[in-house]
Amino acid sequence: MLSQEIKLKLIQIVGPENFDDTKVGRLVYSYDATPMFQSLPDGVIAPRNTGEVSYIVKLCNERRIPIVPRGSGTNLCAGTCPTEGGLVLLFKHMNAILEIDEENLTVTVQPGVITLDMIHAVESKGLFYPPDPSSMKISTLGGNINENSGGLRGLKYGVTRDYVIGLEIVLANGEIIRTGGKLAKDVAGYDLTRLMVGSEGTLGIITEATLKLIPTPESKMTMLVHYQDIEAAAKSVSTIIANKIIPTTLEFLDQPTLKLVEEYSQIGLPTDVKAVLLIEQDGPIKVVKQDIEKMSRLCVQERAVSVKIATSEEEADGLRTARRTALSALARFKPTIILEDATVPRSEVAKMVIAINEIAEKYQLNICTFGHAGDGNLHPTCLTDVRNHEEIEQVEKAFEEIFMKAIELGGTITGEHGVGTVKAPYLELKLGQAGIAAMKAIKDSLDPNNIMNPGKMFAKDSRKRVVVTT
Amino acid sequence: MLSQEIKLKLIQIVGPENFDDTKVGRLVYSYDATPMFQSLPDGVIAPRNTGEVSYIVKLCNERRIPIVPRGSGTNLCAGTCPTEGGLVLLFKHMNAILEIDEENLTVTVQPGVITLDMIHAVESKGLFYPPDPSSMKISTLGGNINENSGGLRGLKYGVTRDYVIGLEIVLANGEIIRTGGKLAKDVAGYDLTRLMVGSEGTLGIITEATLKLIPTPESKMTMLVHYQDIEAAAKSVSTIIANKIIPTTLEFLDQPTLKLVEEYSQIGLPTDVKAVLLIEQDGPIKVVKQDIEKMSRLCVQERAVSVKIATSEEEADGLRTARRTALSALARFKPTIILEDATVPRSEVAKMVIAINEIAEKYQLNICTFGHAGDGNLHPTCLTDVRNHEEIEQVEKAFEEIFMKAIELGGTITGEHGVGTVKAPYLELKLGQAGIAAMKAIKDSLDPNNIMNPGKMFAKDSRKRVVVTT
Repeated sequence: MLSQEIKLKLIQIVGPENFDDTKVGRLVYSYDATPMFQSLPDGVIAPRNTGEVSYIVKLCNERRIPIVPRGSGTNLCAGTCPTEGGLVLLFKHMNAILEIDEENLTVTVQPGVITLDMIHAVESKGLFYPPDPSSMKISTLGGNINENSGGLRGLKYGVTRDYVIGLEIVLANGEIIRTGGKLAKDVAGYDLTRLMVGSEGTLGIITEATLKLIPTPESKMTMLVHYQDIEAAAKSVSTIIANKIIPTTLEFLDQPTLKLVEEYSQIGLPTDVKAVLLIEQDGPIKVVKQDIEKMSRLCVQERAVSVKIATSEEEADGLRTARRTALSALARFKPTIILEDATVPRSEVAKMVIAINEIAEKYQLNICTFGHAGDGNLHPTCLTDVRNHEEIEQVEKAFEEIFMKAIELGGTITGEHGVGTVKAPYLELKLGQAGIAAMKAIKDSLDPNNIMNPGKMFAKDSRKRVVVTT
Repeated sequence: MLSQEIKLKLIQIVGPENFDDTKVGRLVYSYDATPMFQSLPDGVIAPRNTGEVSYIVKLCNERRIPIVPRGSGTNLCAGTCPTEGGLVLLFKHMNAILEIDEENLTVTVQPGVITLDMIHAVESKGLFYPPDPSSMKISTLGGNINENSGGLRGLKYGVTRDYVIGLEIVLANGEIIRTGGKLAKDVAGYDLTRLMVGSEGTLGIITEATLKLIPTPESKMTMLVHYQDIEAAAKSVSTIIANKIIPTTLEFLDQPTLKLVEEYSQIGLPTDVKAVLLIEQDGPIKVVKQDIEKMSRLCVQERAVSVKIATSEEEADGLRTARRTALSALARFKPTIILEDATVPRSEVAKMVIAINEIAEKYQLNICTFGHAGDGNLHPTCLTDVRNHEEIEQVEKAFEEIFMKAIELGGTITGEHGVGTVKAPYLELKLGQAGIAAMKAIKDSLDPNNIMNPGKMFAKDSRKRVVVTT
């Protein structure tokens, strides 16, 4: 609970219309897109500019009040669930595209800008921002940066981190700093810009970002490759890369996913095959055609049963949209959908897919698998029901085994969703005690009072999803 | 001075043949490629593996002995000058290419591998490692990572940071941690991998690195564009980019540089023009031809006086080599060469070049300017003589003005050379007090006893180059 004194001070900073501590107002921001995590904040605040953010942070730092910065809350790691109360900080007033610089190929935004709005704005100038998380229609760029979001074009173009070149940050002590700039190169001191990317709001509050853009590729082609053997599909992925083709997109969907997505989207996806690869290439038209032909041949060589090249942009867009809506499609069939993102070296994708299926069978669970196969970033997704406590316990065990398997194969517990609250108990699997200690030391050094999104990334105990009460 | 006890302990770890505290041995490692900085270490040590590094670090941490990790010492920021004594740590035994993984497109190396040796090794398998610092024939990958080295191909392909995906690090407490892996994506905790890149040995010792590779571009073309107007050359740079062509290389050389380089290399460079741009494009042959033609037209439109396209690989290689050897060429003409790397947004390159010339004139100095114009990363290089104290004072003032101008134009004090000892007094210009405080907090958190390359990056006082006694 916030004291009356603090409440008045906060209202003084942002105005009464931008502070809310009603039960309803707090309830709305008590959860994010992650199932099974909920916790009430003490208040919700919407600053109008960086100066106001700085005042809020100074006050919170003095009084040890947690701050949870939040975009649209589309993350899947309970990264914006206010698990320790405090303030949820919204960027609804800080949502302007400040500048598109066509000479330096940059865009400068406030954190509250919707990802797709910015993508459309730069595309209208012939420029391209590759990171395209599935949630981009509603996610914000501030959220994308805090989570280092990936997307369907990550294989060729990298993730959010690869496009953030300058930041304005409000540190936990309220100081405002600027890192990087419209600069292709900058080695003046530690790389705070990239340290902030993916730090999940635990090190400071991002109040402005300069992002790198690239010229829009001249053309694009899309194809869908069918398999009756999951291993053959996974093998095709590494065969393509080993043949020195880096497609823009190289997505995998297994049969259970295909069936549910087709039922939802009705675009004629095959439901009688064991798996498909959705492959896209962009660039100069001749190169694209050549790559698509070569990849077709390689896939057939790896026992694809058929290859369908999209003949129109509508058809291609349908396929992309089907993939992007996989989570929504799956969500219609069961009350609780738990989507994970264990990631392995791409050479190990086949082994990982097989392991996921074996684990699902062992625990008698309904797990659909899809994901960014080219990145080795798979999304095993469990269709379950939170009210079925016994099954949820099995789910927890199954995912723990999946994470262990990913690590065993040289992978990681999260490729693009972040640690947040959900993965905190598993972080040590990847980092070891010494790695976690180093990260905690950095956290303590920049946020000694632990007010910046506390309870995230580092587990207080080994509490897992199953014992969280909602 | 190391005590006899410590000396014996160090010898116990690495063997007598890998420890040297003779005067001559120490003298050899008392300086690096940076003029006017010299300081004797207390000893030189060459561990044979990560375990030995860990033992050395633990001992040094206990006894507060500085450690300066050193590759080939080609850095230009006095980053490996042992300014506070202690041990210089060499990687001459840790110089193996451990694995080239053609399925995952990665190479794993020990820090002592020579950059060009690795580049040749991966090229023989049709793979490509873009970062190509001018010193790559002698620099090591460990050094490149610690300095986040750039190179001539940075415009299109980025810098060292963009290719480091996994590290083994010995922390200041002697713990060995692993970050990242052969993974396209990993968001398990803070991005320690990129935090280490460019940290100049101040946060830990890198003992192994996994680097990302890409397929070798199919073809490459090189051209040299002549200008009688420096501003027109600089303007061409931003015109090319604004026209949505990203060439591999976009280098600028002014007339004073051209004259000295031609005298040194004798390859027929023009010496009667005010500036040249060296432009390269790589990729599929048709695209490359098209881009080269378009860039030629754009340059002529921006008042280039002539465009010469290299007709053979020998000719192209001659041009590249001439550019790469600019520093060596200049070094023949004066006893002391001070090469800086102020960097600006590329739209500001013209203004920066003009400002450098005005500043040179104001202080009556001989400054040649060349550099990675496409990155906005210029190397104003002063030909002077350390024995001429009056002139050196002017040099110091001139470079301070150059840095201030770069900052004023939205730039930075160092684009690729690092802060080290040389730029430490200027770091605040770029970061402000709050930014430096944040970085120092991180340094203290990971290296509380300040044993990791102490005296670098953060200035103890405002001591500049001119007052350093050598």
